[in-house]
Formats: sequence, structure tokens, C-alpha cells
Amino acid sequence: MAPQIRRLQVAVSGLGRMGARHANHFLHRTPRAELVAAFTPDPKELAWAQANLEPWGVKIYSDFNEMLKHPGLEAVCVATATTVHAEQTIKAIEAGKHVLCEKPLSTELAISQNVLKVAKAHPNQKVMCGFSRRFDASYLAAYQTALSGSIGRPTILRSQTCDKYDPSGFFVAYAEFSGGIFVDCNIHDIDLALWFFSSSTKELPKVKSVMAVGVTALEPDLAKHGDVDNGVGVVEFHDGQIAYFYSSRMNAPGQHDMTEIIGTSGKLTVNANPTIGLTESHLPTGIHREIPQNYYERFENAFVEEARQFTDAVLDNLAVPIDMESSVEAVRIGVALQESLRNGKKIFFDKQGNKVEGGTRAKL
Amino acid sequence: MAPQIRRLQVAVSGLGRMGARHANHFLHRTPRAELVAAFTPDPKELAWAQANLEPWGVKIYSDFNEMLKHPGLEAVCVATATTVHAEQTIKAIEAGKHVLCEKPLSTELAISQNVLKVAKAHPNQKVMCGFSRRFDASYLAAYQTALSGSIGRPTILRSQTCDKYDPSGFFVAYAEFSGGIFVDCNIHDIDLALWFFSSSTKELPKVKSVMAVGVTALEPDLAKHGDVDNGVGVVEFHDGQIAYFYSSRMNAPGQHDMTEIIGTSGKLTVNANPTIGLTESHLPTGIHREIPQNYYERFENAFVEEARQFTDAVLDNLAVPIDMESSVEAVRIGVALQESLRNGKKIFFDKQGNKVEGGTRAKL
Amino acid sequence: MAPQIRRLQVAVSGLGRMGARHANHFLHRTPRAELVAAFTPDPKELAWAQANLEPWGVKIYSDFNEMLKHPGLEAVCVATATTVHAEQTIKAIEAGKHVLCEKPLSTELAISQNVLKVAKAHPNQKVMCGFSRRFDASYLAAYQTALSGSIGRPTILRSQTCDKYDPSGFFVAYAEFSGGIFVDCNIHDIDLALWFFSSSTKELPKVKSVMAVGVTALEPDLAKHGDVDNGVGVVEFHDGQIAYFYSSRMNAPGQHDMTEIIGTSGKLTVNANPTIGLTESHLPTGIHREIPQNYYERFENAFVEEARQFTDAVLDNLAVPIDMESSVEAVRIGVALQESLRNGKKIFFDKQGNKVEGGTRAKL
Amino acid sequence: MAPQIRRLQVAVSGLGRMGARHANHFLHRTPRAELVAAFTPDPKELAWAQANLEPWGVKIYSDFNEMLKHPGLEAVCVATATTVHAEQTIKAIEAGKHVLCEKPLSTELAISQNVLKVAKAHPNQKVMCGFSRRFDASYLAAYQTALSGSIGRPTILRSQTCDKYDPSGFFVAYAEFSGGIFVDCNIHDIDLALWFFSSSTKELPKVKSVMAVGVTALEPDLAKHGDVDNGVGVVEFHDGQIAYFYSSRMNAPGQHDMTEIIGTSGKLTVNANPTIGLTESHLPTGIHREIPQNYYERFENAFVEEARQFTDAVLDNLAVPIDMESSVEAVRIGVALQESLRNGKKIFFDKQGNKVEGGTRAKL
Repeated sequence: MAPQIRRLQVAVSGLGRMGARHANHFLHRTPRAELVAAFTPDPKELAWAQANLEPWGVKIYSDFNEMLKHPGLEAVCVATATTVHAEQTIKAIEAGKHVLCEKPLSTELAISQNVLKVAKAHPNQKVMCGFSRRFDASYLAAYQTALSGSIGRPTILRSQTCDKYDPSGFFVAYAEFSGGIFVDCNIHDIDLALWFFSSSTKELPKVKSVMAVGVTALEPDLAKHGDVDNGVGVVEFHDGQIAYFYSSRMNAPGQHDMTEIIGTSGKLTVNANPTIGLTESHLPTGIHREIPQNYYERFENAFVEEARQFTDAVLDNLAVPIDMESSVEAVRIGVALQESLRNGKKIFFDKQGNKVEGGTRAKL
Repeated sequence: MAPQIRRLQVAVSGLGRMGARHANHFLHRTPRAELVAAFTPDPKELAWAQANLEPWGVKIYSDFNEMLKHPGLEAVCVATATTVHAEQTIKAIEAGKHVLCEKPLSTELAISQNVLKVAKAHPNQKVMCGFSRRFDASYLAAYQTALSGSIGRPTILRSQTCDKYDPSGFFVAYAEFSGGIFVDCNIHDIDLALWFFSSSTKELPKVKSVMAVGVTALEPDLAKHGDVDNGVGVVEFHDGQIAYFYSSRMNAPGQHDMTEIIGTSGKLTVNANPTIGLTESHLPTGIHREIPQNYYERFENAFVEEARQFTDAVLDNLAVPIDMESSVEAVRIGVALQESLRNGKKIFFDKQGNKVEGGTRAKL
Repeated sequence: MAPQIRRLQVAVSGLGRMGARHANHFLHRTPRAELVAAFTPDPKELAWAQANLEPWGVKIYSDFNEMLKHPGLEAVCVATATTVHAEQTIKAIEAGKHVLCEKPLSTELAISQNVLKVAKAHPNQKVMCGFSRRFDASYLAAYQTALSGSIGRPTILRSQTCDKYDPSGFFVAYAEFSGGIFVDCNIHDIDLALWFFSSSTKELPKVKSVMAVGVTALEPDLAKHGDVDNGVGVVEFHDGQIAYFYSSRMNAPGQHDMTEIIGTSGKLTVNANPTIGLTESHLPTGIHREIPQNYYERFENAFVEEARQFTDAVLDNLAVPIDMESSVEAVRIGVALQESLRNGKKIFFDKQGNKVEGGTRAKL
Repeated sequence: MAPQIRRLQVAVSGLGRMGARHANHFLHRTPRAELVAAFTPDPKELAWAQANLEPWGVKIYSDFNEMLKHPGLEAVCVATATTVHAEQTIKAIEAGKHVLCEKPLSTELAISQNVLKVAKAHPNQKVMCGFSRRFDASYLAAYQTALSGSIGRPTILRSQTCDKYDPSGFFVAYAEFSGGIFVDCNIHDIDLALWFFSSSTKELPKVKSVMAVGVTALEPDLAKHGDVDNGVGVVEFHDGQIAYFYSSRMNAPGQHDMTEIIGTSGKLTVNANPTIGLTESHLPTGIHREIPQNYYERFENAFVEEARQFTDAVLDNLAVPIDMESSVEAVRIGVALQESLRNGKKIFFDKQGNKVEGGTRAKL
């Protein structure tokens, strides 16, 4: 019998590292979605698509605009390089499509704000930036506990994004376009701070100051791009909350992203005691366990859940789980941290998000 | 475009607790399989199937034999009550289908042996008993480590299956047909012992003796069915290996299945430090974490992987990951443990698996 | 100023591995006790004593009977080889001394019972067998929780004593006099079962059956002494409780003694997730931690606390924390397990502790 | 026989919370030391001393200068309020005594520097500031691993000191004299940074900048004293190392002090997975464990070890384990963090430790 289920008609733009994964998720792991098209300008990615997508009936395009005209297409997942996230998202919105865009919207605040403006002009379309951690079961469990009130008011948040060291020099090349470690890595942690700090009030917290420092411990060439391989950033918010972040490109055993949400009556930790799976080895050299080797090993299920919730939001006309204002605010903070890292200064903001001169006495 | 992929045409028999899950796995989470049919004689299950399977094009049958005649059907997943596992498996084999049968094959050894005989008579069909733990990522990681030799020769195995206490009396009703706690629960642990103890030699270990004891701590009515809510069993093998098991129906926080594989130069633990996810709560009452509430929360991904590997085995004509001899041996041991529990005696076997009188001095 | 504190006048008998430690504990870490004398017949131990005890004013004797006559001596800690525990304990009691005797009282039940008889004949003297785990902070915390009732009735107890593998052959030589692995190692686990199972009723549980198996995985010469390097034992009690034990001489990373106390509404674990200290190393090979290398690294503080509580019991005329009946019962069970290991049979007891023929149908 | 051992003649000054503990440690747990005198001006502390110290032969003084004249006195442990640490330490040094002074030397840098000057003028006397964590077994294990080189060059250090929330208002009163949360709590974390960052070079790292922020989440009255109940601080060093700190007075389950030492090839964690002891409870509400309730429960053994190592340093004329320059540097950094917290500014230092105007572009 032929299925009678309506399935969201989705295209994925970009079939690189994450694009190929998104394509697989919509193709095989999102029952209510049907991957119908994909775009890539890259010969290697095209070859992969011919082997892995075409046999399942997915049409491959080498022109993004053409792909947007695919018959019946309803939604686009933008997973190209960060530099074209905003442009493609805007085009897709203007073509009447729902959009799931990889993070960050852009490495520049003004461009991110423009995406938001376009999205707001199309209120009947769903537009969401894919902050995958919000779909991870452990973060969701923490969020539910925070909502329950058992930790009181979330007041301090510590969060880190630490990649396994890659000796190939990849990180240096990548830094040219990534926006820097705070925009590329800690953007996730910033997003978590915005999420948890607004859990009780449902209002986005307003940044008051940012300060960042960093070092190039293993990759001095990162300095060419104004970047570091280890960064520490501190963000104050106007309503008496503090988030502090660490990012690193030199974690030895693998990926170690962790978060603590510290409230007035309790604390939640996510991944304080990292592991992959439930196996330990008791050997003459001690007790050993392994951890994920990269963020996809850690967050694979979260990416799948992201695709599912985005699909549900479109099909059932629900609010998307992450609002765009928050994703723009994350860019504001990430860009400011990167700026502070580069100029060595603490940067202050008024409650409207405008930079102001600092030096006023802190009200303790 | 229409997909050009060949997908295994699968039916699921039984749509109860596990049957419905298997149906979902083949329908939505096994890309190379297509769920085309399902059988249930039960009105409630039928209603569920009409809402959840039919819209996806799955044909529902109320007669098992009719289902076997579904055009193009290639494989059947038998997930009915244990009492009909063997009968349906044999029918499906004889109808030329590949079969994935839920564990255990039967609560009786002779019947299990008969299934094996039929399967052997149809060497071109894949027949596998679904011991799901073998597909769990943590058990697979442990198995790979064991294969690597780093723990030496696996010599002692401890394994437990502990369910969350269910005060509804379900366990008492269930015990009437389950074969008892060693056949229903510890069968998984027995299977793990057979798997790990044959990891180096690739030969099934031969049981030498079994001994079991148990108590009814919370459900005295289990005694009516010769069953207990807490059981401890010890199994010796002829080649100098020992497995010991614990099963319980009264674990307070949830499901806690764990295993230790103890080799001559190291030990592997699976789930010694149980948790669900990576979240902990630091509250005035201490640090808290949660664990899975049932075996499906613990092993969901393993069941999906089982469906995928069974599908791959059929489509690519590979050996199934679990051979039938082993699954029959698991029944032999489980049934003997249950017998020992009931008659209070230690039971001895010769190397051919025949029961013998014990009392000979142990060769230490 | 001269101290005005009354301190218990203590002697230690035997200055081997544990004797020297006990001497140090009474000398330096038991404020209310004063180590005044020590006995050793061994030249090496004597040399150690001359360097480490005599300078602190401790008188060294090479004759146990002479030591008992040391002026003002009030208490003796018997820490010689197991074979003379009972004889020295009896002599010391008859000389009017309080006695703390290392475990086990004896490797023979009848001798242990004789010690108990002598102790009972001197009700004004404190006599205690040193089951050190009862003084460990983690076991004490578990015991307090059990007493609180939050796990319901303790019903199943699992406990293991696993030594780091010692390739020197020490274990073989040691097995000649140790009584075997169940009497030497699992005696601690047996004691824990007696302790926890009597926590609510304050009555010693009565053994109903024992069964043990074992293998010599690394030290085949243990068979000469009727012993194994890995043993599994199961003990049923007449009041519906089960304890099961594992002991090993081949644990790779170090000492791993652990216990689970499983009650009708909860479970307590002690050392399920073993570690020494709070340090972990995150290295390219994974995350690593270490565990204690021997039982003294694990239980040092418990031995000190044992000395303190024994001292307090004498000085303040309190009941000793471990009663002698329990320590004799531990010998009964340990010896029976070792016998079951050797003859391959399950051994049954009536409620008076007499062996009976088994084979009666178990009342489930 | 009378002991022939030479024991260090020690006095303790101040018998408050820590003073009484130090007195007990020297009296009962430091075999090579003899507590001969103690000073307290406080009637309540005097009563405690009369009950707990006098009976052991300790002479109690109500005048610090008189105590210094106690016949045979060799060393003084200064454990009074922070405000008199420096004065008493200087007096004791000038009276020819060895000194173990509680941390911090002072809440003012100049005063701390003066203590250092006096100590240097008496090179034959041992003077040490008691940073207890350096004597904790877990920190020592981490330090040995760092020394071994297996984590490469320590580059980033994260460390936190989090006290259990005390609703009595104690923290507000205490803040009047404590110097503030960075001087009182994070001084330990600063000391750890100095210790680990100099582990390879044996040279103290030179502070380059500090920046701190904080909030009063539960105790707004702390603002009166320029203090907070949650503080985050970041310290850059001139040689490319960064330490970042968190301190809190509102940790719900108890004391949680933890540290990560992140090197170029690995990371060490101390207390990432906090617990007190090895017991866990598996209850219907999940799995639970407890943590220390205060820093003494966490670090008791470290304080004892501190007393022993100080004693050994004097008796055996060894270098004290913590040099005074480091302890003064810790005050410099702690005071600067507190200043940054108060004025909201990032503070810069040249390589000589002088404050300079910042704003120069960071060299990445």
C-alpha cells in the first residue's frame, strides 16, 4: 500500500561535514520529513550525493537558486560554510521556504540582525538557527529540572567547548572564516546561557559586559587570524547573572563539552564526568574509559532530534524551539568576546545592547 | 524521483510491548528495510496498528498464516508471547522467510532444539534469536576490548538483570508463562556469558554445573509459579570458567542491568556506575542522578541496531551475528537454573550437555 | 606539664605485615591508648621494633607469656599468624587482658567456638575480632542508611574481595595456612552479610545452605592446598536472605573490595565505582584513574578507627562493636564454603547450625 | 620506658575553628611534634582548652607574648583571625621560633611583603603559610602526574572554592575582615595556579592582568563590605598561562572545591566528580550520594599532613614545602581580583608586579 502520510518536503544546502549528516537525518531518521533535494557546488560532495542520496530518490542541484525551485519544496536546511549561512537563509525565506540554518547565523552582528529582520517579515514561515545542544537529552533533562524550580534562579553558568587536538593544522585554516573560537565554539555555550537564564522569565537576558583572554599553546599561527587555541571569556548580564566560558582546541582524549547551571538553591551539571557509553576497563595501568572523539559522536542524537522538532514545528504550525532573537544575541556576545580577546579590553553594553564606555563602579 | 534502493520486505508478528517497538524500528529506523505487514490477533493492538502503521502503508493481518503469504514478504520478526515464539518461527522458516525471533526461543529446551533443527534444514535462510544486548554500543565496546586480548582470557563473568519494582502485580501474572526469572531475565546474562566466553576460541563453552537460589521478598505469590523476585545463579563450564548471575524484580530507581567480564589480565565493566544521560543535580539533599526506568529506555538503540544488522545479514548474505546453537544453549542453562531454584539442588552436566549425577570431587 | 589522661596500656603480639601497622596505630594514632609492649619471635620483626618502637618507650618481648606479665598491661592486640590467633587470644583472656584479635579467629570452627567459650567465661573483659570493614567510613555510612530504614529490609547482599595479582607466588605459599580464599578473603564479606542482615532484628541470621565453586586461572599450584584464585560462593539464610560472594587473587589494577546491600525498597553500594582519591587524568588514551594497591591502602583509616573504638570500649566499659558470636558464625560459613568448593557439593544446615542432608524441595 | 625521641615543641596561637583543629593535630596526630602551649584571649576557647588540652599537659596562655617565652618552645602555629596573622608571625619569628601561619598572610599586600622580609632576615628559621590543599593526597597525586610531564606544559588552570550555603548570615559578618571572597576563598585556587604553573620551571609565574566580576545572589548585605557571594575571576600570566576561578557561598549540597590543570597534552582533574566516601544509595528517587559539608570534612587529612611536613622540615632542616614568595604573590593576585570586582575594571601588571595602564593590544 502507498503511504498516506504527509511528509515535509526538505532540501539540504551544502553536503560537507555537517550537511551530509543533516541530509542523512532528514532522509532516514525523520519519519515525518522527506529529503527531496540537495545542493552542493563541490565535486567531492556531489560524488558522495550520487552514491548516497540519489539512489533514495533525492535530486541533486549544483545551483542553490535552482534547488529552491524544486517542485513541492517546503523547507531548506542551510548547512554550507558559515560565510553563506545568512545569504542562503534570506534567499530561502524570500522564496517562501521554512529554514533550519546551521549556527552561527553569521560571524557579523549586522548580518545576523538582517536575517532576523527578513524572518520577521515572513511570520508564517518557520526559521530557526540550529543550536543542537538544546535538543540533547541531557541538556533537555537539565532544562526541565531548571524549569521545575528545584535549583532556584539560574545565576551563574559555566560552559565549555573543548575539541580533541587535531595536529593536522586544520584549526588554523578553519580560523580564517570561522569568526574565531568564541564565535565558532563558545557560541553554543552562549546560547545555553541565554536559554537557561531566560528559563524562568522567558525574557532574554541583556548583556552588560564581556571580557576574554586566550593563548595559542599549540598553534601559534592562529594569531594570524586573531584567534587562539584556548580562550576564557566572562559575560555579565544586566539582571545579575554571570556566564563564563572556556574553549579549547587541545583536549587530549576527545570532545569534552560541559555545562554547569548554578542556581540560588542548587546546581545542574551536564557532562561533568564525561564518558562515551557505560564501559570501563580495569587494567594493570588503572581504570580507563573513553569519551567521544568529536562533537558529532557527542551530539548525534541531538541533531536528529533537531531535525524532528523542526519538522514537527512546520507540519503542526508550532513555534520553533529556538527563537531568532536569541540566536542573534548569541552572535552579539560571541563577536564581542572575540573583540575583547583581540584588544585586551573589557567591553561594556547598555541595556539596549549598545556598546558604552566602561569604568563605572560596579554595583555589587 | 522514486527510490531505486532494494529494501528488505519485513513483517512483524505480535504488536504488544516489544512488537510495536520492532514495528516502529523496521518502519522508521532501518533504512534498508520496509515494514510491509504486521500480524496481531488482539483488538487493542489492532487499533494501535491502524493508527500508527496503516497510514504508512503497512498491511495488518489478524491471521499469522495469511500474513506469511503477503506478496513479496521476505522476513518475519516474531515478537509474540514467548509461548508461540517457536511455533511461529518454524512456520515462517518453512514458508521460506528469514526470521528474527524475540528471546527466548522457548521456555523448554526440547522445543528450542526443534527450532534449531528446522533452521539448520534451511541453510539459505537467516534465523536469529534477538539477544538485544549484543547490539548495545557499550557491550560491543567491551566485546571489542575482549577480542583485543587486553583482559587476557575471560574467566569469570558476573551479570545481572534488575527491573524496577512494579507494584501492580504484573510480575506475578507474567510469571505464569515467562518460564521464570532465570529464563526470562537472566537468559540475557547467560547469553552474554556464552558470547564472551567464546570470544577467543569461537567455541561455545560447555556447561558443567548450575545452582540457583532465590527469595520472594515482595511478591510471595510468585511461588505459585515456582518463581522468585530475586534470584542468584552460578554456572560452571567444563573449560574452567564461571558465570554468576543475579536477577531482581525490585530494583528501586529503575532498570539496572550490568555485567563484569573478568579476564586473566583485566576486567571490563558495563554499567557499573549506572546513569541515564549526563546530567546530575546538586541539591541540598546531595547529588542525584537518574537511571533508565525500564529495559527499553536502556536498550532502545540496541534494538534498532539489531534490526539493522539482521537486515544487513539478509540483504548482504552475511552470517547473522548470533548463532542459533548459542541461543539454544542459553535456554538449556536458563531452564536448568530455574529447575535448581525449584528443587534446591545443584545440577551437573557432562560435556555433551546431558545431566549427570554430581558429587564427584571438584578438580580444583 | 605531665599529662593527666588515663591511657589504655596495650601490647601488640606479632609485628608482621598487620602487626607492625597495629603497633603504629596504637602508638601514634590512638590518643587514649599507650603502646607499652610488643611481642615477636622473628629477628626481622625485632629489628624493625628496635628501630621503630623502642625509641618511643615500647618494651619488646620475644616470649608471648612474658609479655603478658608486662607491668600494668591491660589489653593485647593479637596480630600473629592465623594459626596462633586462638591460642594467644585465650591465653591473654585468661591472663585477665582485654583482647583485640585479628580475623579470622581460626580456620577451624571448633577452635573458634572455644575462643568464644573462654571469652564468655570472662564477661568483664572486652574481646573482639577485628573485622576492619565495619570501621570504614563508607561502610558505616551505608550501615547508618540501612538502619534508617530507607532501603527496607536488607534481603540480598553481594560482596567481593579482590586482591591485585601478585606474580611472586606469594598466594600459593600463603594458602597453606590461610584456610583458603573463602576463609581468608570472603570472611570479610561474610561478616558484612551477618552485620547488615541483623541490622533490623539485632539477631544473627542463621545459615541454611552454602555452595561454592572456583577456578585456578593463574596459580594452578593453589590446588595443592585445596584452594583457588577465583571463587564464587552463595549462602542462603533461614529467614529468607541470600548473600553471594566473589573473591579473586587476580584483579589487575589493584584492590577492589565492594558490596551491595539490596533491600526491599532500595540498594546501597560501597565502592561500586572504585577510585583512590579524587584525581583523574585526561590523556590521549582516554580518562584514567587509579585504585588502591592493597587492602591497607583501602582500609587504613578503618584499622585506626578499630583501634580507637576498641580502646574506648575498654576505657568506657562499652559493648565492643562486633560481638564474638558473629565472628564465630563467620568462621562456620567460611569453612563450609571452602568445603563446598573442595567437594563440589551444596551443604545444608538446620536452624541450629548443624549440617543436614539436603535435597528437600526449596520453599519458594 | 621513657621515650627517647626528640619531638618538636609546638604552640598554637588562637583556638577558634581552625586553631582548635591545629592544636588537636599537633597534640594527637603528629608523632614527631609535642603540643606544649596554646594561646587564646577568648573565654570560650579557654574553656575548650581547659577541657581538651590541659589534661594532656598543654599550658594555656592568655597573652601571646608570654606564650612565646614558654620554656623550650621551638615553633608556633598561628591560627588567629586573619587580621593578626602577620603581626603574630613577625613576633614569633623575631622571638626565634619557626612559624606555620594560616592563610592568607594578610589581606594587604604590603603587610604580606613585610612578613616575607622578616622571614628572609631569619634564614635559619622555617616560615610557611599553610595552604592546606598542597598537602591533600589528590592534589599531590595530580602534582606528581604534572611533574612527570604526561600532560605537557600546564597552560590553563580552572579552580573553584564553593562553600555550602549558610543561611545564618555568618558570611556577611565574616566578610568585614576576610578581605573578600577572592582573598578568603580563591586564595587557595590562586596558590594552586602558582604551584602548578611553576611545576616545570620552578619559577613563579608573573601576573599580567586580572579581571573579576560577581553577584550577590542570596546575601545582598555583602555589598556593604565590597563583597559578593558568587565571584568569577580571570588571571593572565606573562608567560602565556591563564587561570580562572569561581567562588561561591551558595553551593547547595556542601563543599565543592575542584581544580582542572590543563596542559598541552593532557588534563588533570581534582574532584570533578565530587563525593564523600564510596557509598551510593539507589532509591525510588534515583541514585544519591553526599559530599563534604565543609572544607574541613574535605581537607582534614591535608591539614594533618601539613602539620607533619612542617614538623619534618624543622626537625630535619628541610626546605618548607611552600615558599613565602609564592604566598605573598597569592595575596597580590587575590587583592587585585577583589579590587577589580569592586571597580569593574581589568587591572594590568608589568613583569615586576607593578600595576600599569592597560589597553595595549593583546599579543595573541
